[in-house]
Amino acid sequence: MRQSQLFTKTRKEAPADEVSKNAQLLIKAGFIHKEIAGVYSLLPLGLRVVNKIKKIISTEMEALGSVEIIMSTLQNKEIWEITDRWSDEKVDVWFKSALKNGNEVGFGWSHEEPITNMMKFHTGSYNELPRYVHQFQNKLRNEVRAKSGIMRCREFVMKDMYSYSVDEKQHMDFYNKVTESYMKVFNNIGLGGITYITSASGGLFTEKFSHEFQTLCEAGEDNIYVHKDGKLALNEEIWNDETLEKLAVKKEDFEFKKAAEVGNIFTFGTGKSEQLGLFFNDSEGKKRPVFLGSYGIGVTRLMGVIAEVFADEKGLSWPKEVSPFAVHLVRLGVSNETLEFADNMYNDLQKKGVEVLYDDRDLRPGEKFADSDLIGIPVRMVVSDKTLAVNKIEVKFRNKAEAELLDIEEALKIL
Amino acid sequence: MRQSQLFTKTRKEAPADEVSKNAQLLIKAGFIHKEIAGVYSLLPLGLRVVNKIKKIISTEMEALGSVEIIMSTLQNKEIWEITDRWSDEKVDVWFKSALKNGNEVGFGWSHEEPITNMMKFHTGSYNELPRYVHQFQNKLRNEVRAKSGIMRCREFVMKDMYSYSVDEKQHMDFYNKVTESYMKVFNNIGLGGITYITSASGGLFTEKFSHEFQTLCEAGEDNIYVHKDGKLALNEEIWNDETLEKLAVKKEDFEFKKAAEVGNIFTFGTGKSEQLGLFFNDSEGKKRPVFLGSYGIGVTRLMGVIAEVFADEKGLSWPKEVSPFAVHLVRLGVSNETLEFADNMYNDLQKKGVEVLYDDRDLRPGEKFADSDLIGIPVRMVVSDKTLAVNKIEVKFRNKAEAELLDIEEALKIL
Repeated sequence: MRQSQLFTKTRKEAPADEVSKNAQLLIKAGFIHKEIAGVYSLLPLGLRVVNKIKKIISTEMEALGSVEIIMSTLQNKEIWEITDRWSDEKVDVWFKSALKNGNEVGFGWSHEEPITNMMKFHTGSYNELPRYVHQFQNKLRNEVRAKSGIMRCREFVMKDMYSYSVDEKQHMDFYNKVTESYMKVFNNIGLGGITYITSASGGLFTEKFSHEFQTLCEAGEDNIYVHKDGKLALNEEIWNDETLEKLAVKKEDFEFKKAAEVGNIFTFGTGKSEQLGLFFNDSEGKKRPVFLGSYGIGVTRLMGVIAEVFADEKGLSWPKEVSPFAVHLVRLGVSNETLEFADNMYNDLQKKGVEVLYDDRDLRPGEKFADSDLIGIPVRMVVSDKTLAVNKIEVKFRNKAEAELLDIEEALKIL
Repeated sequence: MRQSQLFTKTRKEAPADEVSKNAQLLIKAGFIHKEIAGVYSLLPLGLRVVNKIKKIISTEMEALGSVEIIMSTLQNKEIWEITDRWSDEKVDVWFKSALKNGNEVGFGWSHEEPITNMMKFHTGSYNELPRYVHQFQNKLRNEVRAKSGIMRCREFVMKDMYSYSVDEKQHMDFYNKVTESYMKVFNNIGLGGITYITSASGGLFTEKFSHEFQTLCEAGEDNIYVHKDGKLALNEEIWNDETLEKLAVKKEDFEFKKAAEVGNIFTFGTGKSEQLGLFFNDSEGKKRPVFLGSYGIGVTRLMGVIAEVFADEKGLSWPKEVSPFAVHLVRLGVSNETLEFADNMYNDLQKKGVEVLYDDRDLRPGEKFADSDLIGIPVRMVVSDKTLAVNKIEVKFRNKAEAELLDIEEALKIL
């Protein structure tokens, strides 16, 4: 994309009320626009990052055998009343409104209930299980405070997957596969090495620990203790002698860290199926409730975490896997030769399928470099009268201090 | 996709309160699930159709130079108050709710206001215009009645595009291009020949006619008069002697038709920009308001219109352009040879990138054929012990009465 056609400009200042680093940078670089506290629109650069993250997640979910759907935002009160999660006392993040006929509707903050209810129409026999479905849905949550930028929003994109199994064993087989699959997602997104499977308190169904995926991040809202072997982490909520004893590990082998929860997996059991009436016939024709699990990844939150983790004093710095573009081609100078060379290079890269943001604007070099650093595409290639005079391209990696002059062919090999 | 892995089953009955043909069929065939009146979730088959429609639209919008964004559902009251469209007296389809701090928020039924407000941060000079942005957004509208299935919903996917121009001339150039582009979209979606550019009353800015795109459809809510030349159509609201005189056409050359509005284009002018403060500096440095246009296509509505228009007594019938799959491969019989042949054919087609739904279920032929007709994929290929005995495949087009036995190679050529 030509930067002259990208309508967003970088901004000197984020809104005064924006306190979080991720949102400040994403707003200044033109990735998002703040509507109200905790509510952001996705501008072209931000949408591209989110779509990259979604694609990486999709690939893994489909490999697990999950099928994509998308549930409605508007929620049927009756279904949530059955599971006693309609009242504001039980769930304190509901947005609700009235239909013209007086009936209340809710706005989806989660979707276990409607998906489980929907599955009733498509489940009959044990040989139709297990089933896995997932969606990328805009969740709406009436949060009291929204202070972590796009890491805790009133509106955010979540990937939620649900598993429907005949029993706990079939469920746990899948649960374990999802654990591996999630770690693959976080690796593929560029958060490998700093994301931990973290044990937390048991939750609804089980007295065993539940599992979260926590990425080390100073701006995160969670406190975790990471074992020196790197394979075990504990959420603060279960950080006590009893847990350490149960796991046969020593306190002094753990280090305290701030972290952001980027994913979680839950074992629900059969309670919700019994309440909502999701049953199947087993091989002996006996009616039994379906065993439910749910698996979330915070898609827009991930964009925020990545922004926080990799940014430096000059701006954003994207891992190549989720960068809005693979390369930032920056033209300096306005001689016909340079213009033509840069235009041709842009067209060639486009044809080769390389995603390139082409800064074809007539601005001062200082402005263009500042914009480029702020936007944070991992590779910058500068074409100018000077570089072309020696038949070179100036290449700079966003996460390295120094630029280098490379032969043109050598430079293109990087992409 | 193997049908044994597609979790949805066809249903004998739609919900008793569902009166529209499109929703009845889409529910029975497993494309959508009804949550409440006017609110439907998209199941895998429905999501595939919607994604096909979105892709066709995207291609044309990008060809126009529009850049994709996605605005939030939650709406800032203050912005809508500036243009006097917050109160329920002015806009009667708002859903609203209260934030924890007592402030009200709205739920997006349209996005001219927030997009125009956002553009203030990215517009300065005349040489930064025109700009075009579009999104695929879930609109929420508090409709009094919802009786046309997914053709008039309380929640629906809309493609809305906005143009920001320096003046009326620049605007009209784009407006005319969009008109052509929209007709291309409707042609590419399979609605060519029955979709008309229809003049309607002028709207906010202009005393000229505005334009809608109407597809002939008995279940449509609009009444239009189509000229026998096929190029002119008039919405009932401007069907009078004055209009006919102005256009120099004769009453008797028109035919009355029921139709569904699938797209519309609006000239807003500069009013909203003046209210919201969206100005640019012209070439003489003078501050001038930006000229606004908006362009909508009802994405989920299109799925409903297509369902209505092409369905027959046996079920849905998709144009190939938007069909969830290109071919429905149906295996009958369970001999090892047939199983192996069908499995191989499925794998080969997958490898070739042909989108195939493979009915690998062990059901009676009658059930499989009924499901296939209901789902409505344009080409059905039956592989059975009988067809393989003569080295043939039975091919049936959904919109033709008779099946034919073709040589295997000949059959594959169709795809």
